[in-house]
Amino acid sequence: MRGSLAALGMTLCAVASAQTIPDQIVQRELAGSQAYETLSHLTDDIGQRLSGSPGAAAAVRFTTERFRAWGIDVRNERVTVPHWVRGREEASLPTQHNQKIVLTALGGSVATPAKGITADVVVVTSFDELKQLGAKVKGKIVFFDVPMDMELVRARRSFDAYSKAVIYRSSGASRAAEYGAAAVVIRSVGSDSLRTPHTGALRYDPKLPKIPAAAMTAEDAMLVHRLLARKERVRMHLVLTPRMLPDAMSANVIAEIRGSEHPEEIVLIGGHLDSWDLGTGAIDDGSGVAMVMETMRLIKQMNLRPRRTIRAVLFMNEENGLNGGRQYWAAHKHDKHVAAIETDAGAAAPTGFLTTLKGDALAALQTKTSALAAVNANHFEITPETGADTSFLIEAGVPGFGLVPDPLHYFDYHHTPADTLDKIDPKELAQDSAAVAALAWILANG
Amino acid sequence: MRGSLAALGMTLCAVASAQTIPDQIVQRELAGSQAYETLSHLTDDIGQRLSGSPGAAAAVRFTTERFRAWGIDVRNERVTVPHWVRGREEASLPTQHNQKIVLTALGGSVATPAKGITADVVVVTSFDELKQLGAKVKGKIVFFDVPMDMELVRARRSFDAYSKAVIYRSSGASRAAEYGAAAVVIRSVGSDSLRTPHTGALRYDPKLPKIPAAAMTAEDAMLVHRLLARKERVRMHLVLTPRMLPDAMSANVIAEIRGSEHPEEIVLIGGHLDSWDLGTGAIDDGSGVAMVMETMRLIKQMNLRPRRTIRAVLFMNEENGLNGGRQYWAAHKHDKHVAAIETDAGAAAPTGFLTTLKGDALAALQTKTSALAAVNANHFEITPETGADTSFLIEAGVPGFGLVPDPLHYFDYHHTPADTLDKIDPKELAQDSAAVAALAWILANG
Repeated sequence: MRGSLAALGMTLCAVASAQTIPDQIVQRELAGSQAYETLSHLTDDIGQRLSGSPGAAAAVRFTTERFRAWGIDVRNERVTVPHWVRGREEASLPTQHNQKIVLTALGGSVATPAKGITADVVVVTSFDELKQLGAKVKGKIVFFDVPMDMELVRARRSFDAYSKAVIYRSSGASRAAEYGAAAVVIRSVGSDSLRTPHTGALRYDPKLPKIPAAAMTAEDAMLVHRLLARKERVRMHLVLTPRMLPDAMSANVIAEIRGSEHPEEIVLIGGHLDSWDLGTGAIDDGSGVAMVMETMRLIKQMNLRPRRTIRAVLFMNEENGLNGGRQYWAAHKHDKHVAAIETDAGAAAPTGFLTTLKGDALAALQTKTSALAAVNANHFEITPETGADTSFLIEAGVPGFGLVPDPLHYFDYHHTPADTLDKIDPKELAQDSAAVAALAWILANG
Repeated sequence: MRGSLAALGMTLCAVASAQTIPDQIVQRELAGSQAYETLSHLTDDIGQRLSGSPGAAAAVRFTTERFRAWGIDVRNERVTVPHWVRGREEASLPTQHNQKIVLTALGGSVATPAKGITADVVVVTSFDELKQLGAKVKGKIVFFDVPMDMELVRARRSFDAYSKAVIYRSSGASRAAEYGAAAVVIRSVGSDSLRTPHTGALRYDPKLPKIPAAAMTAEDAMLVHRLLARKERVRMHLVLTPRMLPDAMSANVIAEIRGSEHPEEIVLIGGHLDSWDLGTGAIDDGSGVAMVMETMRLIKQMNLRPRRTIRAVLFMNEENGLNGGRQYWAAHKHDKHVAAIETDAGAAAPTGFLTTLKGDALAALQTKTSALAAVNANHFEITPETGADTSFLIEAGVPGFGLVPDPLHYFDYHHTPADTLDKIDPKELAQDSAAVAALAWILANG
C-alpha cells in the first residue's frame, strides 16, 4: 500500500509539473485569491471615489501603498480631474398633492435656482418626438421616458440595451435645451429598481445653454407616465444644487513587472479607481481594480517573470471625463503597447473576453488560451470597442481585450447606491482575476 | 343550425341562472373591476398618507366622496392621531472615510441633537446579547443585526419571519435605553434591498429614556457587520430630526349597505387608509382599501341586498398608533358584529383566508364558499390573529377573517419608498377583491 501511494504521489507530481504556467496561475488564484480583501478595503473602508473626492485620493494612496508593500514598482502620474459635487436633489408634483419624486442629478448637471423651478412636464420617447414638439417644450421640463429593453437584458445583451437607452442620459439635456426646455428628467437607465436612482454623466453641447438634468427612479418615471397617459396635468417642482468646483489634482496609479526579454513591449491591464458617489463602486469598478491588482500580486508572488512588461494602470476619472485614459495616452502613446486588457464590467462569473483581434491573429492566440477554460473564460467575441479608458490605444491599433463577466444583473446596480460589496461573490471575483491574470501572462509571453 | 344555436343559448342561460350569487360576484368583479382605478387615485394622485399628513386628509375626503358618488351611505367618525413628521436622516462612519450610511428614522423616533451624535457602534443579535453586554453599551449606538429568516420567506411564511425580526424594531430602542445606549440602529426588516430602508413604528417604554432609532438598509447593515467582524472600530455620526407635532384630527371612513332582514347584524370589512410616508402605500394598505371599496361598489351596482348589514371601515392610523381601530371599538363595541374581514397583506394573487373560526362553525361556512375556488381563495387557515385594526373585535369573540395574498414578495416592498402602484397586478387585485366581496356576501347571508 505504501508503495502504491508513493507511486500515486509521483504521478500526481508529474501531472502538476506538466501544467503550463497559465494553468498554475488559474489554480493558484482560485486557491488563494486576495482580490476580495483588496476590494473590501476600497469599498468598505474608503467608500465612494468620485473624481476630486477624498475617497478618490484615498484610493490612489491605498493602491499605491499596496503595490509597494507587495514589492512591485509603482508610480503615480498626475491627472487633472473635474470636481463635481452633488447637492440637494428634491422633486415633487404640486399637481398631485405635492407627492415626492425620487431622482438624482446626472453627473455634471448644473443647478437649478436654490428655490427650484416649477414647470409642466412634457413626455417624449425619442429625439424624433422631441423634434416634432419643437418650440412646444419651451420653458417645460422634458421627460425622456425610455426604459432599458429588458428582452435584450434577459438575452444577456445588457450592454446593447444600455447603449440604446443611455443616449438620453448623455445628450438629452442639450437636445432639449436646443428647443428652450427648462430642465430634463430621464427614466433611470437600469434593469432593476426598488425606487432606485441610477446616475451617470451627461455631456453638454458647449454651443447650447446648460440646463439641469436628473434621473428619476423607474417607479417615479412610471408614475409620471401613468399620470400623463390619464391626461392629467403634471407640474414638477425640481431642486438640484450640485456644484462644479475648480479642477482637482489626482492621479493614475501605474505598476509594472518588467519583462525579461522585451521590457519595452507592454501588455497593459487596466480598470478605473474612481466611482460614482451614490454607492461604493464595488462592481463599477472596484472589482476591476481588484482584478488588475490581483494579477500583479499573483505573478509577483509566484516569482514569475514575463518576457514582456506587464503594466497595471488604475485609471482616474473614467466616469465623468475620461481624463485618466486621455492623460495616459498623451504620456505613453510612443510606448510599444502589444495588448490592452480592460476590466470594467463587474465581477459576476466570467464568460470570456471581448477582443479587437481577428482572423489569424486571434486563432494564433487561441492555441495558447486553454487555461482560461477552467474559469469559463476561453471564449472571444470580436468587437470594435473593448473599454473606455483604453479606447485611445485601441483606436491607434493596439489589440484590445475586455473581460466579460455575466452581464445579466450588472445594470441592476450600475451607478446606484446599491453598488456595494455585498453584490460581489468572492469566488466569482477570483475566477475573473484568474482569467485576467492568465490572459495577461499569455499575452506577455506569446 | 339556427335551431341548435337557440337551444344552446337556452342551455347557457340556464347555467348562468343556476349560478349562486357569490359565483356571480366573483365573475362580475373579474370582468369589470374598478379596484385598480380606485387604488391609482389613492397612490398616484394622493400619494403618502401618514397619519396627520395632508395625504391622509385627502384620502378621507376622496374615499368618502367616492362612496357617496356610488350612492352608498357613508360617514366619517373622528379619530385623534399622532402627527409625527420625518426630518433629516443622515449617517456616516468617521472611522471609514466618512462613508455614507443609508438609513431611515423609525416611526415615532425622537430626534438627535441637530448636530447629531457620534458614538461607537456595538453589535448584538438578540436581547440576550444586549443583556450580557449590559452597561458596556452605555453611550454607544446599539446595532441590532437581525436579518429576516429568508428560508421562512421562501417557504411563504413571510409573516412569521417578520414577527421574529420586528421585535427589535418595536422594542429595541427602549431595551437598549435601559442600559444607557445613546441611540439604536437596526437592520431593516425586509426581504429585499437595493439600498432600500424599511421604516415602521417603534414603541417607547414610558418608564425609560427615549433614544433615537433608525433602520439601516440591508447593505449598510452588512457593511457595519463586516467592519466589526474584521475587528475595525466603527464610530457612527447620526443625525435624525423628526418631530412629534400636536395630535391631529382625522377620521375613520364608514360606509354601509344595510341588511334586509337583520340590519342590526354587521359583517365588517376593513383596511387602513393611512400609509407610511416613504412610498405611496400601494401594497400597505391602499390595496386593502381598494378591495373594501370595490366590494361595496360591486354589491351596490349589482343591486344586491344582503340579509345582514355589510359595513366597510377604512381605518385611520393603523401604522403608528392603531387609534382608528381603538376608536372604532370604543364607539361600536355594543354593535352586533357577526364577522370581521380585514385586508392588510398586499394584493398579490389570493391564496385563501386566515380565520379564527374552528370546528363545526368553520365546516358549516365551508359548505357555502365554493365560489371562492374560482380565485383560489377557498382555503381557510385557523389562527388567533387576523388583523390589527379588527383585533379588538376578535379579542371580544367576533369571528375574524384575514385575506391572504401570496406573501412571497410582500416584505420586499413593505414600509419602503418602493411601495408604489407598479407593484400591483390589476388582475390579482381584482381576484383579491372578488374573494373579499364573495366572502362578505356569504357571511352577510349565511
